[in-house]
Amino acid sequence: MSLGAIFVWETLGTAILILMGAGVVANVVLKDTLGTGGGWLLINFGWGFAVFAGASVAAPSGAHINPAVTFGLAIADKLDWSKVPVYWAGQMLGAFLGAVLAWLTYKMQFDTHEEPQNTRGIFCTGPTVPSVPWNLVSEIIGTFVLLLWILLSPGAKEATEGVPQFGNSALGYAAVAFLVIGIGNSLGGPTGYAINPARDLGPRIAYAVLPISGKGSAEWGYSWIPVVGPLIGGALAALLYLVLPV
Amino acid sequence: MSLGAIFVWETLGTAILILMGAGVVANVVLKDTLGTGGGWLLINFGWGFAVFAGASVAAPSGAHINPAVTFGLAIADKLDWSKVPVYWAGQMLGAFLGAVLAWLTYKMQFDTHEEPQNTRGIFCTGPTVPSVPWNLVSEIIGTFVLLLWILLSPGAKEATEGVPQFGNSALGYAAVAFLVIGIGNSLGGPTGYAINPARDLGPRIAYAVLPISGKGSAEWGYSWIPVVGPLIGGALAALLYLVLPV
Amino acid sequence: MSLGAIFVWETLGTAILILMGAGVVANVVLKDTLGTGGGWLLINFGWGFAVFAGASVAAPSGAHINPAVTFGLAIADKLDWSKVPVYWAGQMLGAFLGAVLAWLTYKMQFDTHEEPQNTRGIFCTGPTVPSVPWNLVSEIIGTFVLLLWILLSPGAKEATEGVPQFGNSALGYAAVAFLVIGIGNSLGGPTGYAINPARDLGPRIAYAVLPISGKGSAEWGYSWIPVVGPLIGGALAALLYLVLPV
Amino acid sequence: MSLGAIFVWETLGTAILILMGAGVVANVVLKDTLGTGGGWLLINFGWGFAVFAGASVAAPSGAHINPAVTFGLAIADKLDWSKVPVYWAGQMLGAFLGAVLAWLTYKMQFDTHEEPQNTRGIFCTGPTVPSVPWNLVSEIIGTFVLLLWILLSPGAKEATEGVPQFGNSALGYAAVAFLVIGIGNSLGGPTGYAINPARDLGPRIAYAVLPISGKGSAEWGYSWIPVVGPLIGGALAALLYLVLPV
Repeated sequence: MSLGAIFVWETLGTAILILMGAGVVANVVLKDTLGTGGGWLLINFGWGFAVFAGASVAAPSGAHINPAVTFGLAIADKLDWSKVPVYWAGQMLGAFLGAVLAWLTYKMQFDTHEEPQNTRGIFCTGPTVPSVPWNLVSEIIGTFVLLLWILLSPGAKEATEGVPQFGNSALGYAAVAFLVIGIGNSLGGPTGYAINPARDLGPRIAYAVLPISGKGSAEWGYSWIPVVGPLIGGALAALLYLVLPV
Repeated sequence: MSLGAIFVWETLGTAILILMGAGVVANVVLKDTLGTGGGWLLINFGWGFAVFAGASVAAPSGAHINPAVTFGLAIADKLDWSKVPVYWAGQMLGAFLGAVLAWLTYKMQFDTHEEPQNTRGIFCTGPTVPSVPWNLVSEIIGTFVLLLWILLSPGAKEATEGVPQFGNSALGYAAVAFLVIGIGNSLGGPTGYAINPARDLGPRIAYAVLPISGKGSAEWGYSWIPVVGPLIGGALAALLYLVLPV
Repeated sequence: MSLGAIFVWETLGTAILILMGAGVVANVVLKDTLGTGGGWLLINFGWGFAVFAGASVAAPSGAHINPAVTFGLAIADKLDWSKVPVYWAGQMLGAFLGAVLAWLTYKMQFDTHEEPQNTRGIFCTGPTVPSVPWNLVSEIIGTFVLLLWILLSPGAKEATEGVPQFGNSALGYAAVAFLVIGIGNSLGGPTGYAINPARDLGPRIAYAVLPISGKGSAEWGYSWIPVVGPLIGGALAALLYLVLPV
Repeated sequence: MSLGAIFVWETLGTAILILMGAGVVANVVLKDTLGTGGGWLLINFGWGFAVFAGASVAAPSGAHINPAVTFGLAIADKLDWSKVPVYWAGQMLGAFLGAVLAWLTYKMQFDTHEEPQNTRGIFCTGPTVPSVPWNLVSEIIGTFVLLLWILLSPGAKEATEGVPQFGNSALGYAAVAFLVIGIGNSLGGPTGYAINPARDLGPRIAYAVLPISGKGSAEWGYSWIPVVGPLIGGALAALLYLVLPV
């Protein structure tokens, strides 16, 4: 597959992922919505099926839609390093575009929201208890589980371009949705489970640059943790994979 | 497949869809039910599995059960335009019949409801914040995601008559259920995600003509948005599909 | 398959169904449980996965575990009428045994419950608004959807002995779970969706004869509705099936 | 497969299971989390998808990740008894390690928790109404259902080393997730459904030895029930399996 096609599919898939992922948080956080106050299980099903939709659409490029997945696959010797920058570029662009689309979907609700300074959480993650080392640990462990599963789950091993990662079934990508719902339910409590650098950084940039009514700080001081943590977690899973008796 | 058979399957599948979709909203909105006050996640699982049931039943005709799906497939050159009116007619009739059945299922609960003037939302959608352009945007984006996934998801590409869209597995149609649950969770907050002209217009007509106790207005002023928005969204996804490197 | 084997599988599958189905209601209704007050979505997922477990176990006999399914399949000419009494006997015995097991699982919680006269709903269904004709309509429509889906869904057509109804996949039976969750979400609000004569009558008999602390009435006056309604609904779906252009 | 490989896979799979299982309870029980107060359905989806992730990862060894599964398979003559100690050792080590990882994930939230003496429930189970015989009954019945399904469900019969238990599909292991969610919903109310000796004992040891801020008692007096009950339940299912007309 051409590098251009990889770029297109990763952009499109990550845009769908973030449109739906930021969308469900907007639905729960903003007041004038039908899902307002919907709770953590609703948010997790939202993100899980966002991955389902985005990964299905990005199947031709292997459905990474996550720089930590791309990084882990390269370390695990399943992806040529020369392609990594193309994947990452598509993922970052897609994440930004998805955040813009989520904002447009909820434009009126952003405009009527009573606490507009508190809308950053719709776009990017933050810790419930700030702590550089322990917030990193949470992101590392969550992403470690994601990558280990991608590398080891039967039928989910070939997350590379040109090969649908979960076979030729529309339902196949529900597997990764269930995993992500599980990670959110179980490991998302401390930091909101970025587990994907593009998922956090792309929408954070969008929050910073979009003319969102009365918006607050983008919290750049925290922004490196959901980038570095997932990359470390993905790398650790890939390194473990290389020594396992697969 | 004969046009008559297409009409029968689309009528039947859309009737099941709306029976169960309007049913879950009745269950949550009306007071004397076991699901009263059940929340947005319950509503979304209700609509998702309504699509699962309706689409499974309508498999022989390709399980469109949505005029925006039919429209998008025709634009994407996957369906002959001459068949579009037959699909649309079956979908509209089925949506009307499904709404009648949902009303019959909850007949006693409609009769004992304390605020009968507020039962329109059981049948058709409405915006939380009225705005013609932004309500359209929400419906366009939601339906765009639906059609893009139908056109691109591995194994979900052949939504046309005579070919079960998700293969010969009873579980296959759960894929579209998960997508619809995701769209509801994530993109349904502003307008209630019609994403299907028949889903909104058919039950709205039913609400207008059925002898529902103490019913309120059918809100015809809004009724064109959940028809036009989904058609635009489906068309945009089909146009994007035509230029993608599939 | 011998009639004896059919009897064994239907007994076992229906026992698992009712153990888990009555169990989830006990978990939500009784006070000294971890799931107390858990809500309608929890109950529906409980019943759905109860069907998943019970139907998987009863796969060798076609996984009817519901007299209305057996009745509908016989009408649809997919089951020999001579076998119907054997299916029904196994289903009734299994439903009774499952209710006993559910009671044993929650024995301490039944004993400590503050309102023991209100525990009948754990075992069998009742209407939120009593009305013979409309309660019948609700049960008829819910069972009609169940049978129509079993008869028409791709891959779910062969619910007969010796043929696993959903193929040789452990996940296959999740399809019927999703359908039942959907029926509960959407059509269960008025009467609690018996949609299965054995599911209601077997546990009702168990409630009447078991030495449950401080128990109330078994409400025999209502008991025929969740028997007759589902049989009518199943029959109507089978009759429709026979005239459809399958 | 070598005994060493079996040990590695069972350790890894059980660690993932307990990391995510203890994680979801931490998320709900601790105060400074995003899932605090999330309810029983969230907990059950958390444990279910924890099994999904852990079992997928442990597919090479047959994905037991539960001493009661290993025990039941040996009784059912599907596993050589000489391998049982290796499975059990891996499961116990993995359960301990998973609990440590869950604690690390929520380290800050443990430190800031207001009622640190009440954190035992994050690690291991306890009864809502203490009663040795009836708590045993609840655990026996829950595990009986688990093992019966593993032994009888189509496509889930070969839970032994070298054979992916649910086939070569990433989604296949969702089947056991749905079953576990169902057991939790339906049968978990009285004792919190250990249904797995390692799931309870490993984290209980971790709770006893880890330097958790202000922790309370590990309740050793109860600890044998979630070990013995599941082993009895698994054995009974295996014995029933041996006499069924499979």
